[in-house]
Amino acid sequence: MRPLPTDSLPIEPVPGPRQPFTVDASNPHLAKAAELAKVFAVDAAAHDKAGGKPLPQLAALKRSGLLTLLIPTEHGGQGERWSTALKATRELAKADGSIGHLYGYHFLSVHAAFLRGSPEQAQDIYRRSAAGNWFWGNNGNSFSRTLFGRRDGEYTVVDGFKPFTSGSHIADHLSISWEDDESKERIFAVIPADRDGLTIEDDWDGFGQRQTGSGRVTYRGVRVHESEILAFPGHAGKPLRTLGPQLQQSVLLNIFIGSAQGALVTARDYTRETSRPWVHSGVERHVDDPWIQRVYGELVTKVRAATLLADEAAEALDAAWARGFELSEAERGETAVTIAAANAHAGTVALEATSQIFEVMGARSATRELGFDRFWRNVRTHTLHNPAEYKTRNVGKAFLTGIYPEPAAFQ
Amino acid sequence: MRPLPTDSLPIEPVPGPRQPFTVDASNPHLAKAAELAKVFAVDAAAHDKAGGKPLPQLAALKRSGLLTLLIPTEHGGQGERWSTALKATRELAKADGSIGHLYGYHFLSVHAAFLRGSPEQAQDIYRRSAAGNWFWGNNGNSFSRTLFGRRDGEYTVVDGFKPFTSGSHIADHLSISWEDDESKERIFAVIPADRDGLTIEDDWDGFGQRQTGSGRVTYRGVRVHESEILAFPGHAGKPLRTLGPQLQQSVLLNIFIGSAQGALVTARDYTRETSRPWVHSGVERHVDDPWIQRVYGELVTKVRAATLLADEAAEALDAAWARGFELSEAERGETAVTIAAANAHAGTVALEATSQIFEVMGARSATRELGFDRFWRNVRTHTLHNPAEYKTRNVGKAFLTGIYPEPAAFQ
Amino acid sequence: MRPLPTDSLPIEPVPGPRQPFTVDASNPHLAKAAELAKVFAVDAAAHDKAGGKPLPQLAALKRSGLLTLLIPTEHGGQGERWSTALKATRELAKADGSIGHLYGYHFLSVHAAFLRGSPEQAQDIYRRSAAGNWFWGNNGNSFSRTLFGRRDGEYTVVDGFKPFTSGSHIADHLSISWEDDESKERIFAVIPADRDGLTIEDDWDGFGQRQTGSGRVTYRGVRVHESEILAFPGHAGKPLRTLGPQLQQSVLLNIFIGSAQGALVTARDYTRETSRPWVHSGVERHVDDPWIQRVYGELVTKVRAATLLADEAAEALDAAWARGFELSEAERGETAVTIAAANAHAGTVALEATSQIFEVMGARSATRELGFDRFWRNVRTHTLHNPAEYKTRNVGKAFLTGIYPEPAAFQ
Amino acid sequence: MRPLPTDSLPIEPVPGPRQPFTVDASNPHLAKAAELAKVFAVDAAAHDKAGGKPLPQLAALKRSGLLTLLIPTEHGGQGERWSTALKATRELAKADGSIGHLYGYHFLSVHAAFLRGSPEQAQDIYRRSAAGNWFWGNNGNSFSRTLFGRRDGEYTVVDGFKPFTSGSHIADHLSISWEDDESKERIFAVIPADRDGLTIEDDWDGFGQRQTGSGRVTYRGVRVHESEILAFPGHAGKPLRTLGPQLQQSVLLNIFIGSAQGALVTARDYTRETSRPWVHSGVERHVDDPWIQRVYGELVTKVRAATLLADEAAEALDAAWARGFELSEAERGETAVTIAAANAHAGTVALEATSQIFEVMGARSATRELGFDRFWRNVRTHTLHNPAEYKTRNVGKAFLTGIYPEPAAFQ
Repeated sequence: MRPLPTDSLPIEPVPGPRQPFTVDASNPHLAKAAELAKVFAVDAAAHDKAGGKPLPQLAALKRSGLLTLLIPTEHGGQGERWSTALKATRELAKADGSIGHLYGYHFLSVHAAFLRGSPEQAQDIYRRSAAGNWFWGNNGNSFSRTLFGRRDGEYTVVDGFKPFTSGSHIADHLSISWEDDESKERIFAVIPADRDGLTIEDDWDGFGQRQTGSGRVTYRGVRVHESEILAFPGHAGKPLRTLGPQLQQSVLLNIFIGSAQGALVTARDYTRETSRPWVHSGVERHVDDPWIQRVYGELVTKVRAATLLADEAAEALDAAWARGFELSEAERGETAVTIAAANAHAGTVALEATSQIFEVMGARSATRELGFDRFWRNVRTHTLHNPAEYKTRNVGKAFLTGIYPEPAAFQ
Repeated sequence: MRPLPTDSLPIEPVPGPRQPFTVDASNPHLAKAAELAKVFAVDAAAHDKAGGKPLPQLAALKRSGLLTLLIPTEHGGQGERWSTALKATRELAKADGSIGHLYGYHFLSVHAAFLRGSPEQAQDIYRRSAAGNWFWGNNGNSFSRTLFGRRDGEYTVVDGFKPFTSGSHIADHLSISWEDDESKERIFAVIPADRDGLTIEDDWDGFGQRQTGSGRVTYRGVRVHESEILAFPGHAGKPLRTLGPQLQQSVLLNIFIGSAQGALVTARDYTRETSRPWVHSGVERHVDDPWIQRVYGELVTKVRAATLLADEAAEALDAAWARGFELSEAERGETAVTIAAANAHAGTVALEATSQIFEVMGARSATRELGFDRFWRNVRTHTLHNPAEYKTRNVGKAFLTGIYPEPAAFQ
Repeated sequence: MRPLPTDSLPIEPVPGPRQPFTVDASNPHLAKAAELAKVFAVDAAAHDKAGGKPLPQLAALKRSGLLTLLIPTEHGGQGERWSTALKATRELAKADGSIGHLYGYHFLSVHAAFLRGSPEQAQDIYRRSAAGNWFWGNNGNSFSRTLFGRRDGEYTVVDGFKPFTSGSHIADHLSISWEDDESKERIFAVIPADRDGLTIEDDWDGFGQRQTGSGRVTYRGVRVHESEILAFPGHAGKPLRTLGPQLQQSVLLNIFIGSAQGALVTARDYTRETSRPWVHSGVERHVDDPWIQRVYGELVTKVRAATLLADEAAEALDAAWARGFELSEAERGETAVTIAAANAHAGTVALEATSQIFEVMGARSATRELGFDRFWRNVRTHTLHNPAEYKTRNVGKAFLTGIYPEPAAFQ
Repeated sequence: MRPLPTDSLPIEPVPGPRQPFTVDASNPHLAKAAELAKVFAVDAAAHDKAGGKPLPQLAALKRSGLLTLLIPTEHGGQGERWSTALKATRELAKADGSIGHLYGYHFLSVHAAFLRGSPEQAQDIYRRSAAGNWFWGNNGNSFSRTLFGRRDGEYTVVDGFKPFTSGSHIADHLSISWEDDESKERIFAVIPADRDGLTIEDDWDGFGQRQTGSGRVTYRGVRVHESEILAFPGHAGKPLRTLGPQLQQSVLLNIFIGSAQGALVTARDYTRETSRPWVHSGVERHVDDPWIQRVYGELVTKVRAATLLADEAAEALDAAWARGFELSEAERGETAVTIAAANAHAGTVALEATSQIFEVMGARSATRELGFDRFWRNVRTHTLHNPAEYKTRNVGKAFLTGIYPEPAAFQ
């Protein structure tokens, strides 16, 4: 197998590698995210191995103030745009895909009351979430027919379970949804994570995104007060209410981008500092092998292109969000197609990058201790929740016919 | 082979296809370029078949005022940025790769005096070029050791030939270069295209970029006055003087992007209006086949990502150009790497798109009359002038080591 | 663009390139095909440019005896297996895709009477075809609803037209099919190519497969005697009768393989003898650039793998054919899936190889005179007649469920 | 995330899936390997998780008689060809990459005495190995400069360590190599695994091939008798002695093929039995989605083509081995190129298949319990030991120039 050269040939001092994936540090929130990411990167491999709850990282996120990023300033948040949150998500995912995931999904729940509830509910939730520096978990994915509620006076009693409840294992508050026994309609609500009758199983067994706690939550006679239920006829039929899949896809795609960037930068450092030149390469440093240069060149270029597509999609989301409940169906459709394209592309490129890095690091890089395979495991796991095939068809259909995807789960 | 259905099933009225590749029409120059492109598209297939000289298109370009786009306003031009010229190049290439090529390369020669000559020469050339609405041909590619000059008093007598002299067949003025018999140095100059002793062979036989006139020019005792020679010691060693390859690569990559966009839009229209559904597809309109939607979705996404990379590279060039002779080596290097990545990626994506379109148009689309293969022939021909392999290595090397490519031809 | 080095650096004498694509010359028919291919290769580029009728090549094929290869020995042929005919097709396609096409499709018509007619008709046709050394053209593609017949005593009068009638422009005899005005059934027949009322338009305008004459044949009151009509109730429902698509796909896929091999070998010779090393390569011979070696290595490997798949499919066809009218539905299905996989893969690999060769030949290889683009144009044109998408689905479906494609046109 | 449909829609009874990857059961050794593989598959995921020593599997292999497969019959083995051992390796790797690895590498050591020692040594080792039903571990990889020996009378005393000593943790006997302190030559020997001074660290930490024990062996004053040293001047300069890299690459490539086949078949069963149709698919069974059919169709086709290339390479190795010490340099070279191509292709296809299977199984397939990611982890780890880049260059170089790779480690 790989030879041990008699002595190592450290790379000569160079200007320092090119940094095409650095964050815009003029934005203080992004600078803070980058700073956290640096800390999280140190033991990300160990956290991946351990699974379970990322409590130190959660504490750091709470201290950082980044959890209130998207809450309007008048309610105690920073009033930032989605694109900032998405780039912070990306930055965190460069170090640790699980943390990026938890952070990004948190905002889906933060906004649940705004999207589905009354203006008063939204304000109340924003205010309390900001004041309490809540971390949100997601029990609201709209498809699972495993959780049911029946009315009982001012309360609804909810029984069953929810799968894929990312973040619930460390959440302060939860956004949830169930099917009403009578009307068969889907009901949305927000409740504290310590509500009686809830069991957060913390049984996530994915081979990637190991600390996201995306397992089950069991409901046994959980009582939800009608003031916690999100329903506001005044916004019925508003396209903005159907923008959930685009928020989710935006978070996902930026985790892919962050994972790809993180994999490349991590691999680059290993290649520079540790990899040895191939025995028949004729070069003294691995970085001087035209093969190694070409592979990095290809990957950097692809990841950069995917990043620009992600940036464009984030701007599209900002623009759609800024339209608020005035958002039109066509605008919603155009936003959906832009985000779908960026999402599918990011996943494809991230899968490629996270697998190919090993070829340019060499045989000794493939150990459990180094844990570089977590990048691929994370992306491979997470890309499955929203197949590129269907999103890509929607992009093609819109290009061909001008018809946008019907608003629905995942599209 | 493909069946003839008894009657065609025209696509039902739809909102109109999505337009991810439209030009920014708020820029009047780009609007004009788009308008010209529309006209050129009508008989682009016929022009491709004919080869030779695109005289009607040249006349239209002259009338449009677009030839003076990059000449400073104080000398009679529009003083636009490179990114505008590159996007106009892209727009023209959507209709006709040859015209995009001629138009973009024209500016390399327009600026030859600025880059290599004295400030006075630059001003003089700018002024006369604007006043005369000159079209420039390129005899200055720096590598060919086939053209030699010897001093004869105030004149240099130049003999030999130049290959790949794009645009010379329809040029008013030429930028040229030769090797000095004594000093062995490369000498640059600008001369009228009708100078005695010049024979513009118009013998280009490429299977793509058919009207670019990229054949030979023969020199028999051509006399060049010393005032026409571009030399200015005051700028010796300035990085800006080595930016020629980046200008050229920027033009090339935008021709690739334009060709890819043009191929996709042309194919899309054919698929909508003419293609029939596959006999086993179970759909009544070809655009409803999930296969067709997926392939278009993939191609649109890839071409869009490559376009964003091209836009980023164009902005990098604007920034570098704006620095003028103050441009530093590191800035030149970073610009070169950004453009190299965009160029290599654009070529790869354009080759893929221009070949794959046929799969979604069907067997009847592959005729000489329709001439849709010109997109692939154009890109295939033009991508060979600057191998992606070496540019990609340079991108990887900079990522790994921070070392930028040595300024030189093609890099 | 590409530099002219001061002097060329011819490749040093080497053992001679490796030959992974040579034919098995121990089979005299294949040796003959290879010999013909060598001759045809000389002016294949010129023939491609000219289009029209490949009369000299037809004469050579007639002289070679290869036209009767699949006719049983008892009827005057060589009684060879399909795999031999397919490898001869492949060999001819290495030199000239049109000739491979005409030669392979010829056998579809040779066997039309065997597959659809009575044993007596088959014997009669075999005998006369062998004795007359007939070349067959194909007017029998089963889908076109553009040709109709009405009974008139012992005759049927046929009117309309056929598209995609490969080989008709140089055929002695034609296999044809039309729709019966009354029964709406498809009727098959064989007639001489000079029958009154037939106009062979020779109007093929494909940008590839230029000499295949795949244009229209017009029928004006063409009278077909009932003895020429192929119908034999004794074989009704026999799976062998539905094997036509597999014969056609087998011919097609071997044209793809031959085209890919021909492209690679042609490019290799150009790279060895003519290409110059890239200016920044640091090598004196283009073949010593690791880039060039890698690209050839990849293409050779892919084309070799596709060739083995084609060989396996040819053996499967031999086995199915040997079963004759005893062929079971399951055997037919397994054969269909094996051939479908080989066909789709051959097309994909051939498209890739015929486009990528230019990257390793360089800018000067892309001329009309050299005509190397004909390989891509041929494959691009021909792969459209039978989309890989649907064949690939059938392969996947059989792998997943064990269900074979319903016998039908193209599958 | 993925919806829970109200009830599952089990696939209807079908003929049973197509089996393109079944072993040739007419060979009793392969039938036995397939039988073992079936057993090993049951808890392969658990073994992957556990790592360490595959003792039950080793016992089963010993009972099966497959360990003596390549020992000549006259010395107590089955005298089979390499292709049989390689196909048995492939079959075992379908179930468990580690077991395939251990089994295939075992034969490299079995033959060490034959390749490097005297005929008498070879016979002695063959006889004792067969009689003792030894399992061999590999300490002989030729590159590591970490193990040194000094002569001490009839003994050599060896000190240092060996990395990547696959199989040593469960071996009866070891093939080893070191550098002689004086001559600096590499010395080869075979010794029992329980020799004094040896510490088999069993510290392998690869994220793939988890039970191969490819960690370190430490040597402290290990005494090797001169009768154990393999040296035979009579075979000096014989090309067969340089065939080690081809044996190793052949084993590797068949592990890749087996892993790819195993991944596909495992995924297929999961897709049939467990996967749910995508919510927007419009089909009731996941296997009826054209997307799923296409992806399986592509993967099956690619893996089948790679398998045929592997079969061809195995036949080439059989032919070379049969030539014995008469093998010529050119024959060795041609064999090396054939195997190199098959190896590089197998690795590429296996990486693709083992990653893509998840897309057609869905989100619930990506758990640690199911352990389907082991296929990718195994292939990703193992492909790093012999970069495809350099093998591919060698294939291209031979195609271009006819020059075969210089016999050396890895080539």
